[in-house]
Amino acid sequence: MDDDLEKLAAQFKTFTKDMVDNPYRGIPTFFGLPYRETLENLDLALIGVPFDLGVTDRSGTRMGPRELRIQSKSVGAYNHCTRSSPCIAHRIADVGDVPFRSVYRLEEALEDIAAYYRGVAAAGVVPLTAGGDHSITYPILKGLAPKEMVCLVHFDSHCDTAPPIHGSGCAHGSPMRNAVEAGLVDPKHSIQIGIRGSSEPLWEFSYASGMRVVHIEEFYELGWKKIVQEIRDLVGSRPVYLSFDIDCLDPAFAPGTGTPVAGGMSTFEALQTLRGMRGLDIIGGDLVEVSPPYDHAGITALAGATILFEILCLAADARENRTA
Amino acid sequence: MDDDLEKLAAQFKTFTKDMVDNPYRGIPTFFGLPYRETLENLDLALIGVPFDLGVTDRSGTRMGPRELRIQSKSVGAYNHCTRSSPCIAHRIADVGDVPFRSVYRLEEALEDIAAYYRGVAAAGVVPLTAGGDHSITYPILKGLAPKEMVCLVHFDSHCDTAPPIHGSGCAHGSPMRNAVEAGLVDPKHSIQIGIRGSSEPLWEFSYASGMRVVHIEEFYELGWKKIVQEIRDLVGSRPVYLSFDIDCLDPAFAPGTGTPVAGGMSTFEALQTLRGMRGLDIIGGDLVEVSPPYDHAGITALAGATILFEILCLAADARENRTA
Amino acid sequence: MDDDLEKLAAQFKTFTKDMVDNPYRGIPTFFGLPYRETLENLDLALIGVPFDLGVTDRSGTRMGPRELRIQSKSVGAYNHCTRSSPCIAHRIADVGDVPFRSVYRLEEALEDIAAYYRGVAAAGVVPLTAGGDHSITYPILKGLAPKEMVCLVHFDSHCDTAPPIHGSGCAHGSPMRNAVEAGLVDPKHSIQIGIRGSSEPLWEFSYASGMRVVHIEEFYELGWKKIVQEIRDLVGSRPVYLSFDIDCLDPAFAPGTGTPVAGGMSTFEALQTLRGMRGLDIIGGDLVEVSPPYDHAGITALAGATILFEILCLAADARENRTA
Amino acid sequence: MDDDLEKLAAQFKTFTKDMVDNPYRGIPTFFGLPYRETLENLDLALIGVPFDLGVTDRSGTRMGPRELRIQSKSVGAYNHCTRSSPCIAHRIADVGDVPFRSVYRLEEALEDIAAYYRGVAAAGVVPLTAGGDHSITYPILKGLAPKEMVCLVHFDSHCDTAPPIHGSGCAHGSPMRNAVEAGLVDPKHSIQIGIRGSSEPLWEFSYASGMRVVHIEEFYELGWKKIVQEIRDLVGSRPVYLSFDIDCLDPAFAPGTGTPVAGGMSTFEALQTLRGMRGLDIIGGDLVEVSPPYDHAGITALAGATILFEILCLAADARENRTA
Amino acid sequence: MDDDLEKLAAQFKTFTKDMVDNPYRGIPTFFGLPYRETLENLDLALIGVPFDLGVTDRSGTRMGPRELRIQSKSVGAYNHCTRSSPCIAHRIADVGDVPFRSVYRLEEALEDIAAYYRGVAAAGVVPLTAGGDHSITYPILKGLAPKEMVCLVHFDSHCDTAPPIHGSGCAHGSPMRNAVEAGLVDPKHSIQIGIRGSSEPLWEFSYASGMRVVHIEEFYELGWKKIVQEIRDLVGSRPVYLSFDIDCLDPAFAPGTGTPVAGGMSTFEALQTLRGMRGLDIIGGDLVEVSPPYDHAGITALAGATILFEILCLAADARENRTA
Amino acid sequence: MDDDLEKLAAQFKTFTKDMVDNPYRGIPTFFGLPYRETLENLDLALIGVPFDLGVTDRSGTRMGPRELRIQSKSVGAYNHCTRSSPCIAHRIADVGDVPFRSVYRLEEALEDIAAYYRGVAAAGVVPLTAGGDHSITYPILKGLAPKEMVCLVHFDSHCDTAPPIHGSGCAHGSPMRNAVEAGLVDPKHSIQIGIRGSSEPLWEFSYASGMRVVHIEEFYELGWKKIVQEIRDLVGSRPVYLSFDIDCLDPAFAPGTGTPVAGGMSTFEALQTLRGMRGLDIIGGDLVEVSPPYDHAGITALAGATILFEILCLAADARENRTA
Repeated sequence: MDDDLEKLAAQFKTFTKDMVDNPYRGIPTFFGLPYRETLENLDLALIGVPFDLGVTDRSGTRMGPRELRIQSKSVGAYNHCTRSSPCIAHRIADVGDVPFRSVYRLEEALEDIAAYYRGVAAAGVVPLTAGGDHSITYPILKGLAPKEMVCLVHFDSHCDTAPPIHGSGCAHGSPMRNAVEAGLVDPKHSIQIGIRGSSEPLWEFSYASGMRVVHIEEFYELGWKKIVQEIRDLVGSRPVYLSFDIDCLDPAFAPGTGTPVAGGMSTFEALQTLRGMRGLDIIGGDLVEVSPPYDHAGITALAGATILFEILCLAADARENRTA
Repeated sequence: MDDDLEKLAAQFKTFTKDMVDNPYRGIPTFFGLPYRETLENLDLALIGVPFDLGVTDRSGTRMGPRELRIQSKSVGAYNHCTRSSPCIAHRIADVGDVPFRSVYRLEEALEDIAAYYRGVAAAGVVPLTAGGDHSITYPILKGLAPKEMVCLVHFDSHCDTAPPIHGSGCAHGSPMRNAVEAGLVDPKHSIQIGIRGSSEPLWEFSYASGMRVVHIEEFYELGWKKIVQEIRDLVGSRPVYLSFDIDCLDPAFAPGTGTPVAGGMSTFEALQTLRGMRGLDIIGGDLVEVSPPYDHAGITALAGATILFEILCLAADARENRTA
Repeated sequence: MDDDLEKLAAQFKTFTKDMVDNPYRGIPTFFGLPYRETLENLDLALIGVPFDLGVTDRSGTRMGPRELRIQSKSVGAYNHCTRSSPCIAHRIADVGDVPFRSVYRLEEALEDIAAYYRGVAAAGVVPLTAGGDHSITYPILKGLAPKEMVCLVHFDSHCDTAPPIHGSGCAHGSPMRNAVEAGLVDPKHSIQIGIRGSSEPLWEFSYASGMRVVHIEEFYELGWKKIVQEIRDLVGSRPVYLSFDIDCLDPAFAPGTGTPVAGGMSTFEALQTLRGMRGLDIIGGDLVEVSPPYDHAGITALAGATILFEILCLAADARENRTA
Repeated sequence: MDDDLEKLAAQFKTFTKDMVDNPYRGIPTFFGLPYRETLENLDLALIGVPFDLGVTDRSGTRMGPRELRIQSKSVGAYNHCTRSSPCIAHRIADVGDVPFRSVYRLEEALEDIAAYYRGVAAAGVVPLTAGGDHSITYPILKGLAPKEMVCLVHFDSHCDTAPPIHGSGCAHGSPMRNAVEAGLVDPKHSIQIGIRGSSEPLWEFSYASGMRVVHIEEFYELGWKKIVQEIRDLVGSRPVYLSFDIDCLDPAFAPGTGTPVAGGMSTFEALQTLRGMRGLDIIGGDLVEVSPPYDHAGITALAGATILFEILCLAADARENRTA
Repeated sequence: MDDDLEKLAAQFKTFTKDMVDNPYRGIPTFFGLPYRETLENLDLALIGVPFDLGVTDRSGTRMGPRELRIQSKSVGAYNHCTRSSPCIAHRIADVGDVPFRSVYRLEEALEDIAAYYRGVAAAGVVPLTAGGDHSITYPILKGLAPKEMVCLVHFDSHCDTAPPIHGSGCAHGSPMRNAVEAGLVDPKHSIQIGIRGSSEPLWEFSYASGMRVVHIEEFYELGWKKIVQEIRDLVGSRPVYLSFDIDCLDPAFAPGTGTPVAGGMSTFEALQTLRGMRGLDIIGGDLVEVSPPYDHAGITALAGATILFEILCLAADARENRTA
Repeated sequence: MDDDLEKLAAQFKTFTKDMVDNPYRGIPTFFGLPYRETLENLDLALIGVPFDLGVTDRSGTRMGPRELRIQSKSVGAYNHCTRSSPCIAHRIADVGDVPFRSVYRLEEALEDIAAYYRGVAAAGVVPLTAGGDHSITYPILKGLAPKEMVCLVHFDSHCDTAPPIHGSGCAHGSPMRNAVEAGLVDPKHSIQIGIRGSSEPLWEFSYASGMRVVHIEEFYELGWKKIVQEIRDLVGSRPVYLSFDIDCLDPAFAPGTGTPVAGGMSTFEALQTLRGMRGLDIIGGDLVEVSPPYDHAGITALAGATILFEILCLAADARENRTA
């Protein structure tokens, strides 16, 4: 074992005393991180958005952040692939949940989210978000208001570029369309991975706007390594926002979600694709659509927490690169 | 066994051939009743309101009508206490679910409900509703628009007379207040039974408006027979609307609900109290707050279906009395 | 504490070393009793009948004996009400499951059961049976072929005296009718307790034959003490067979059953009624209709095992009285 | 996006208004299709067979059709791989469940099934069946009575060619043997895919009769593409019946089944193999052995519904080819 | 409504803004109270003891405090029976979990608990503890080291006065014996309520030492009001420690526990008995044996949290009386 | 089909009569094998170790052996890959569970295990163990005390070579380190497969001692065939002990375990890797960390039983080779 690992291990042992040994102890925060009420003096922040007013089928993602906090306590001390521990190397905290004026109004709540993330952007903090349903991604991007359009790397079984449904264009079927139409996302350098299922005709916008759509069949045909290369080629050194809908995974790996679609990828394949993105300029990310009432033994939340940790590692690396 | 029973038994055997023998067969409708797309030529109608935009904690009651249909197939052929089978004696059907313009807007959806029940009233049909969260009771009453104020007989652990919460006065915490304020319910001749828990201070309106509030302690202190007598004395021959929130039962009997409160009554005690209301002028009723994602082995939906059947029997009797 | 208890306690401590301390250890047998392959030299025997071909709705009682064995390991060392330990005072064993020629033929399987219990009767062993669905009670009685008609004390939500359904008169809706018609049970001195639900019209036979039917309403109106007195008056010193369908309990207490009916009694009330039967001439008994696929955390099987233990205690006492 | 997709999308949006948006609304039918009581004027029909008298271990598939109806509501509007929507292009309906004279007699019930499918064949309708246990495939084929022997393409972990067990040759272990022996299936052009587990010695008949048996090891060794090629070579332009036992999938993907066998394929791999069969002359198919009491969050029924939809697409295509 | 209630309601509305509306939001603490790392400036403290090394059967109570925190968020803002809100009237906080040197050593961990509660006593704080298994009660009392022997009011299905089992006298079967033998508890003025089951012979010590043992039969025979009177007569103005084992409740009300015993009381009956103790000099209390892995929909933890809140109310009142 | 298979099939049919047909019947033993109280006259023995005092997070593996017995009844009659039935060809029995002096003392219990396996070694029996948590592997090896150091082939998500945690070096994080330090295992010829997750820094010992660590990424990069070759090259003809922690599998395949780590292998991949080890000199093996309270529909225990059967087949073959 090399010096580096040894040094980190030493830190790790101190840092993780409580975390590794009894994940069930104490007050659950994301990855066992300290809880902070403000965004001051942070490099990155874990943020919960307990919200499910945007769903069309099964509700329950409002319970997502709480369960992700619980399961994440046995994740996140160390990344064995990158041999690094972002929670040691950076100033990271759990800053709690986005406040809402009301739990009854979809549009208003999305405004609350946007307002919150304007504060995150102002504080210069890189946000990692635990949803909540997927409608939250648009107001997050709106709040962050990146100076240049971001590339979207989007894992999902749905393109989420549907036209308005039920008289509302801001539910969980349309965030990516909204973000493109608002000039926040550059569709020509964006990619959607894992797509499948019977809602396909709703997603003309993805094709029309020039997004790269990787159906699950193509994902398996090419293999995750080629998809990784394609992502890298597509985004280059542009800023990237990473959005992961847990229903990208097969329901065997993620039963606890609101609109499961059979025939998805495994958690391992998702993790490897994410790991391949190391070095890209990730400016933020989210893990959404974990619905605890439909989960069993916390396996969906555990998969979600593990994916969120990989995104956190990528974002921490990217921040370091930007500030280097 | 007397003649009466024998005669009904004969009818029963024909009527229930499919229902008794294989409850899992075929397309589930409420109590295995015929499915009708219109309200024409009906005396009473079973109506689903798959809706949970009004909840504050656990969602899931949008799945309530579907699960109540499934569990009700082993209920409802015959009422052994009244020795009658309302589904034989009256023209009753499952008329499906109330249509919504959108699943994203609480206020608009409540208007849709009101509009639907205006149609029900116009058709002269007595409605029995399966929720859905409790916010639906106010628009149901609004739609029915009874000529004179109705007496409310309300089983619940919450009074549901809260002031506006989260900037909305029409969520599931306030329907009874709204109905009183709209002049639909006569609080002086209304009663709320099974009340308990930490939200008490929100319910000043019940006391201020003169409703009779029976806490669970008083329910047990007096016993269900005296409560029955009190209901009868209070409402007399006035028209009555009966609303039953399944969380009136203890969570042991109804785990599948959105805001369970420990220390409630048993299903048997609830049924006996309902049975004591025979002869009252019931003009409609609802059974709300069954949340299938939190249920186990369908026991909450089964209790709910059994209660809904008792309400149906009372309403069928009352209709007969009115038309006699 | 008196001498008696002290003495039993001493025995208990030796006897239950394994049973009390680690119920999850080793091979599960009923109440942790020794497993025997033959009926020789036994006073009483615990017998499993893993069978559900007689059900009309939810299946699964074929798994009943296995789960009752598991949960019964933390029950049965001692009866704190009678201050006795029947498993010490008598020769009792778990003799395994009734063998079937086929798992596909209802009628043939019931013959297999009858054949097995003829052996039990021949061996002079008192049988305590764990079902299985309720259709098994008739062949058990047929096999036992008591010299004089027995009194049936029957706990259930259904009378189980239906006419043939689906072209078969031997499914789980009719065993009590069959037993009466076969001259095995004396209906005039038999009683059915806990009856309720929509199948009532199927049970004319109970009334016609003169059985005492105690609906759940009457059970609560009179209270268990008066029901006990009525049982004692009705059966006197006649031989009694005790049959307990777990769906007599409310689904809150017994969710794991095939045809649950809301509004039943509690486990405590059932146990007290059973305890009141001490001294009656119990010649055998069964506990049926536990369906583990619908159970949660084993609570139905635990209630069932506790009830089966009370029946065992009654039967052991009765045997002692007969041989005294 | 090409014209074709656009046109279908337009139809889709109208057709699926209710289906896509609120899968939990209304009366559940297969894929949200119209419910019809007769077979008249249909090209293809979805048929439920709620039946589990043929199982040897866990029961519960009698609940299969009901749960498949529920989960299929979020499946089946559109096939993103074939860019087609069979439910628009053809006359397809849910025609309900096969009626049984009795729920107690295996052999008789299988006759009822055969009788029903004789009607299906007479009506010229292509049947897609949702089981039920696997014993139903033999009477389905018997009822269809194809003019020439069909090729069987059979996905399963078991060959289902066992000799009579428990004195019955028509339980769920033997349908394929029965179909071959009855001259309905041509074993020389039939294939069984996904086979594994400890019952192997029971399946001599598969080898003796000349069926191609693809164990799961060989499936992975060759890959699904080669298996597809082998199927195509084997069946050519002959008529094909497609039977899919959900236990072909690994228990991670399909926990809700009666005889799970560890080490199976993923839902995605199954779907791809099915998709490879496009153009074959599929004359009917079934999806069997979904046992809801053992399922979690509906994931087994969802996988089953997705597979059944692929079979429906293949059969619709084939019908079009035949009538073209 | 009187002035008092109005005033409290005003406070309540401010205090509970977050708590009532979205129980699922944010970091879960007991009753939504502030989290404090020290005991300074507190009147009462909520303390978690995530521990299950003392159990003999099902483990899992180590997860108890976490789940009790989650469910308690919808409890505890207000006590509708006493019309008071202890969390407003007193300085109360969640002070986290007792730290352990090791999760592998029963005896050592109990010493850690004792050490922690010595600190609690030194700080003059009244402790309310959420277990954990019942072995923790002895070290809690040892740590508190009350100046005079306390009266124990103990709800349970077990007396917990067993002799050493498995070579250890400090597991969850013996805490009450240990506390008496250590001179911490005065058995002559102590009472154990709800006792039942097959472990009776292990509890000679209760009788020998003079404790009042109320079996569940006697509890129902006398009714909770007479038991309340007996408690009051027995303890008078002496200091009281209140210990509630959730398995005192019937498994229907509390499935999520480690050694469930069928035939217990309801949550309501337990709450009423507790409420009857108002005015006694409660110096601390605990709620133990909630085992989340065996719970469903949080109903056991919800019942536990509700009971813990009643104990908190009693203890807060008592503290006020002592300091008045 | 060849002669060999036919012959075995004949044996199989007799041998498995009960096992294949009704897995739910009778007293559950491992693979339906005979239960023996002694080790006499056995070649191999199945041994349960119901134990979880060594876990750091979720407990429950104390229930592992019981559930593995239940699920294994539908596994193990025949190995379709090797075309052999070890339970016919060898003298194999279920010899029950290792006895413990106490369920409260980790170190003492591990001594009890070591003592028991000294007896196993003395009897010349090859042990196949069903855990229990992973701490048991060290005392098993200590008890077996092989004459020469064994090669360890270890499937897991954790290396289990941590330094002492919580003041104890013998919990489930360190067994492999202990076995190496005690000179029982030769690290230079040992391999750990499937490793991943955040505890990596705790496992320096694996690298320092020279063990081959195959992370899950490398497992997929190389494929199971190359890993098999590497195992074979590494161990050659040396004696091998095989230890399989079920958390090596992804939580989708094994939700019922104490420290699940997302991103693992499938059951099929694990089985194939094991099958590749045929011919190695396996002297014993274990399958550990199945935690039934977190399982669903028994799928984890079924996967575990299937893996344990493969290990049994390898060990039976190896024994035959040694005695040939």
